Amino acid sequence: MDFSIAELAVKFGCDFIGNPKTRISYASTLISAQQGAISFYTNSFYLEQLKSTKASVVVIKSSDISNCSVDALLSDDPYLIFSKIVALLNPLPIFESGINSSASISEKAQISDSAFIGPHCCIGDEVDIGENVYVGPGCIIDGNIEVGANTRLIANVTLINKIKIGKRVIIHPGAIIGSDGFGNAKTDKGWLKIPQLGGVRVGDDVEIGSNTTVDRGSLDDTEINDGVRLDNQIQIGHNVSIGEDTAIAASAAIGGSAIIGKRCMIAGQVGMVGHITVCDDVRINGGSVVTKNIKKPGVYSGSFAADEDKIWKKLVAKIRRL
Amino acid sequence: MDFSIAELAVKFGCDFIGNPKTRISYASTLISAQQGAISFYTNSFYLEQLKSTKASVVVIKSSDISNCSVDALLSDDPYLIFSKIVALLNPLPIFESGINSSASISEKAQISDSAFIGPHCCIGDEVDIGENVYVGPGCIIDGNIEVGANTRLIANVTLINKIKIGKRVIIHPGAIIGSDGFGNAKTDKGWLKIPQLGGVRVGDDVEIGSNTTVDRGSLDDTEINDGVRLDNQIQIGHNVSIGEDTAIAASAAIGGSAIIGKRCMIAGQVGMVGHITVCDDVRINGGSVVTKNIKKPGVYSGSFAADEDKIWKKLVAKIRRL
Amino acid sequence: MDFSIAELAVKFGCDFIGNPKTRISYASTLISAQQGAISFYTNSFYLEQLKSTKASVVVIKSSDISNCSVDALLSDDPYLIFSKIVALLNPLPIFESGINSSASISEKAQISDSAFIGPHCCIGDEVDIGENVYVGPGCIIDGNIEVGANTRLIANVTLINKIKIGKRVIIHPGAIIGSDGFGNAKTDKGWLKIPQLGGVRVGDDVEIGSNTTVDRGSLDDTEINDGVRLDNQIQIGHNVSIGEDTAIAASAAIGGSAIIGKRCMIAGQVGMVGHITVCDDVRINGGSVVTKNIKKPGVYSGSFAADEDKIWKKLVAKIRRL
Repeated sequence: MDFSIAELAVKFGCDFIGNPKTRISYASTLISAQQGAISFYTNSFYLEQLKSTKASVVVIKSSDISNCSVDALLSDDPYLIFSKIVALLNPLPIFESGINSSASISEKAQISDSAFIGPHCCIGDEVDIGENVYVGPGCIIDGNIEVGANTRLIANVTLINKIKIGKRVIIHPGAIIGSDGFGNAKTDKGWLKIPQLGGVRVGDDVEIGSNTTVDRGSLDDTEINDGVRLDNQIQIGHNVSIGEDTAIAASAAIGGSAIIGKRCMIAGQVGMVGHITVCDDVRINGGSVVTKNIKKPGVYSGSFAADEDKIWKKLVAKIRRL
Repeated sequence: MDFSIAELAVKFGCDFIGNPKTRISYASTLISAQQGAISFYTNSFYLEQLKSTKASVVVIKSSDISNCSVDALLSDDPYLIFSKIVALLNPLPIFESGINSSASISEKAQISDSAFIGPHCCIGDEVDIGENVYVGPGCIIDGNIEVGANTRLIANVTLINKIKIGKRVIIHPGAIIGSDGFGNAKTDKGWLKIPQLGGVRVGDDVEIGSNTTVDRGSLDDTEINDGVRLDNQIQIGHNVSIGEDTAIAASAAIGGSAIIGKRCMIAGQVGMVGHITVCDDVRINGGSVVTKNIKKPGVYSGSFAADEDKIWKKLVAKIRRL
Repeated sequence: MDFSIAELAVKFGCDFIGNPKTRISYASTLISAQQGAISFYTNSFYLEQLKSTKASVVVIKSSDISNCSVDALLSDDPYLIFSKIVALLNPLPIFESGINSSASISEKAQISDSAFIGPHCCIGDEVDIGENVYVGPGCIIDGNIEVGANTRLIANVTLINKIKIGKRVIIHPGAIIGSDGFGNAKTDKGWLKIPQLGGVRVGDDVEIGSNTTVDRGSLDDTEINDGVRLDNQIQIGHNVSIGEDTAIAASAAIGGSAIIGKRCMIAGQVGMVGHITVCDDVRINGGSVVTKNIKKPGVYSGSFAADEDKIWKKLVAKIRRL
């Protein structure tokens, strides 16, 4: 698959500079690009790479064009246009439907004829797998579980207990959805495990990263709403609700029953205690610990930038003397 | 299974208010409850839900009773009584014993006739599986490993090397028990891997969460003692010892050879450096970094609450000028 | 396998004190040692254990010898010499080559005759497994993947998409290498997934811990260079490059496109934002958040030590009043 710069300009409503017949067939970084590559430029850190790139076309702001010696597609948001072109050049891989003979499938499970079930998958009694669903090697789907059309479980994904997954969802390897929440009541004789009875509802167009864990609710369900993006190694406690189009970066941990609004952006390693509410359009910087409700959209922070140890130790000593 | 309020009052030694014949058959939150549900109330955040609940019975403190318009079971610790009722209504699921034909089992392994081994499990030579043990789909048990009676490995659990697991333990999907600790000695030519030779001992009535990792000891064993509760995505380094009935919340990381006492409560994302000792009955708040021995029971903290970014940045600037 | 103290002294160029014929056959801690054990002493915390040890030989600094009542091997770096002896006594376990009949192997995959493929492994079309490679139970290797000679995937390792793994690498259970990075472009209609096209290159003599995740690059590759040590539950974002012999402890998270130099030591739970550069020979203390380039070798810190909650709360209140 390849496209001329003129075709791309029409498709994405951009102006361009250069030969309308210049063709691109793959996406690349500025530094690795060869003939036929399309690349992009937004960050002056890469200025030298822009000047010397061998890409055939660069997506760039018109204000940066003077540093670009190759053909250019102009956009106010080069990364977005570049991303759309990458998606155009690289559609999701096609798969053949069918059930691998090594998979272990309950006779009671409902599996669409157009679905793929990979080697060594385990699929239990009350499972319903929709159209064009891809279940990669080694996935376990065990419980009362519905997987919506066009969803992809890449490999080694575990879905257990009570789950409803929407359409076009992507779940990466090692993710565990639906396991018991951390529910314990204190007694004189130690901890009493509180049976976890809820499920997990995952909306449409969600992506869930590798080794991320999403606990089932205690009584009601945990909710990951439409368009949510979860990176790797995130912990989502029981009965958390994450609003539409919120994105959470790696290694964040969200305490039980926290309610997070729509379009939030939560950076890596953020921790959030349970039972709090965060409104829509909140951005939280990396490593922050959120302990109270956030009622106003905006940016929030709570971590210190690392410094030379000597300087840091002096600072801490001064603080301790306050 | 259902119970009258009078039966529950006798069983748990509580008073009640309302019709002794009122029956409940399932547990619910106040907001989702319908007829036949039992719910509980402890937190004034849910006051409006209490006032309008359709639950048949609410477990509540007698001091809160004026806001409750449905039948009530009275307790000074409503959450504990509610938890016991939930446990009563929801015993662990029953399973049929037997070995799934797709499992790969060493002829030398010892497996109780009353155990269940799920599809695609791998069980090695020196494994001993006790009575009524449930080994869910896709578990790997490979090494010199003993699993005590009534223990449940939910699914996709990996036990390797040298492990002794007690009775009535629950291990959730993706947990890895017994892998090598991080043992490296510096040499002129880079790192020398130090062979890890110890094992892991897990006591009775322990629960270990999804994607949690517990390393084997370097020489002696890593110890998770009776009644310990580990949430998801916790890292337990080699030769750590965790005392009875200690609970650790998600995403905490405990450095090698740390010794943690009994009945501690360690919140989410706490980090603990290696080779330190924490006494019994210590509570550590979320996100704290513990770098020194703790010799006195009590509550410990070390993290800042996130704030509006502008306010936080000003504060950091002031601190830097100290 | 056993050795006399005289043999060890020659082999490692050490002096010794005691009977040259004293033999050791296994490694132990001071406290657990019995006859035939070799142990080591470096930390005065263990002084009482040194005085009462039943080890046959202790590796120790000559300056500490007065407290040692058993035979001693002398070294300025007792831990390194001890580690070498442990490695000598405990070579990696030998395995028989062959492919377990329950594994699911593509006919197109290239697998060395000297390799071992364990039960329930899934190996795809474009996989090339080198000589003496050990692939433990339940591993998934699916994509364009090359695994170098003498590498060991312990169990339940997932390698996907596009990966080149060097020689003598060890990867522990639950590690996920090659899954998609967190690439999303903001649009008016929510997030657009940016197809991830790069791979992961892992050098020789690397070790990767349990449940660690290493994302494939967006366009170019993610790089884990020779001799790197990654502990458990580490997140490595797309296009990160980690220099030779750098060691990273558990639960650290490295943001996309960060470039880390050689011989760095990064402690547990460190977070690093994306797109920054850390030079060679940098040490970062536990729990620090690194937000800027580090251009000078040395030690860096950014976290506070936990304190009694009362003291900490007072301190925070004072800081807030600055």
